[in-house]
Amino acid sequence: MTNIAKKISSNVVYHSATVNRPRREKLLGHHGAVLWFSGLSGAGKSTLAHSVEEELHIRDCLTYVFDGDNVRHGLCGDLGFSLDDRKENLRRISEMCKLTADAGIIAFTAFISPVQKDRQNARALIGNEDFIEIYCKCSLSICEERDVKGLYKKARAGLIPDFTGISSPYEEPENADLVVDTGSNSLEECTNQVLGYLFRRGIFSTK
Amino acid sequence: MTNIAKKISSNVVYHSATVNRPRREKLLGHHGAVLWFSGLSGAGKSTLAHSVEEELHIRDCLTYVFDGDNVRHGLCGDLGFSLDDRKENLRRISEMCKLTADAGIIAFTAFISPVQKDRQNARALIGNEDFIEIYCKCSLSICEERDVKGLYKKARAGLIPDFTGISSPYEEPENADLVVDTGSNSLEECTNQVLGYLFRRGIFSTK
Repeated sequence: MTNIAKKISSNVVYHSATVNRPRREKLLGHHGAVLWFSGLSGAGKSTLAHSVEEELHIRDCLTYVFDGDNVRHGLCGDLGFSLDDRKENLRRISEMCKLTADAGIIAFTAFISPVQKDRQNARALIGNEDFIEIYCKCSLSICEERDVKGLYKKARAGLIPDFTGISSPYEEPENADLVVDTGSNSLEECTNQVLGYLFRRGIFSTK
Repeated sequence: MTNIAKKISSNVVYHSATVNRPRREKLLGHHGAVLWFSGLSGAGKSTLAHSVEEELHIRDCLTYVFDGDNVRHGLCGDLGFSLDDRKENLRRISEMCKLTADAGIIAFTAFISPVQKDRQNARALIGNEDFIEIYCKCSLSICEERDVKGLYKKARAGLIPDFTGISSPYEEPENADLVVDTGSNSLEECTNQVLGYLFRRGIFSTK
């Protein structure tokens, strides 16, 4: 036992939090952060996030990707796709990311997050120091041509209401920390661009 | 770059998640888990959680404590204290803990969580393998005598509605993985009991 536990009386003992973010980051050997990927469906957010994650992991960084698969069915399983619900969805994700960054993790989010105000809210909530907005820039025509999930076809057929880029606007990020041209550049180039940025920002150091 | 990134065409690239829980746990050197502390206000949940956390941290384990301070104002800031809101509060915490355990973290929750069904839901959601229910057993009379936060006094004066133990029931855990007598035993004894259990369960190993 450490001497932090103070026995006040035979029954009353206090033990405040002694493990804080700096100690966790020292243990991990890198800083916590939130990499917030934004972009159209098909722009390559998840692809790029997972590629960067792999490169960070082999450099001994602890990472975690939050995406529709693990959030929409769980934490936000009670939410639909109305404007209000989308806003609440991003709010909860922001709050969760704030805690995971505090835990020392390099967290990724890969959601379209089309509304500038919502991204601003996320930045305000998480804090400028930890929030890294990465705009995966890719034209609608390229995204639609890719149509990896067949969603654009469905959206054009009117089967998906409020589909970003087709029947709902995508507001281009005005304050992105990084703009990655996922329409023209290779995955390797994009990955290296993000890694270089994170390194210069001091999130991780080479080993 | 690893060879996992597959370039399908000049524009379409896929990169699935390659960093999974086993790789994260190998990096950390321990398993992810959720230590769910339950007990009356004043039973010593937070105190014990932070004490165990300190001991795990000095053994190089990555830990994080979720409690009212960091959850009630953030992720669950929109919720009140009605039965439904309390249930939703624990549901969100469970979902978040599920993800953090998947991230490899040893997560702690220090909430009264007085309802057996809610704890069962948490266990079902998180999964038996990761969910460790720790009952901080302490009689109401001792908790009320301690009254660290002065809440019992207020509750007895009728200033706090639905206060667990006074005007709202605490359902003793029926399936706790561990019962810790925080009413009689010292913090050191309780801490060692939890650590011993976690070690035997294989969550961490000695270093």
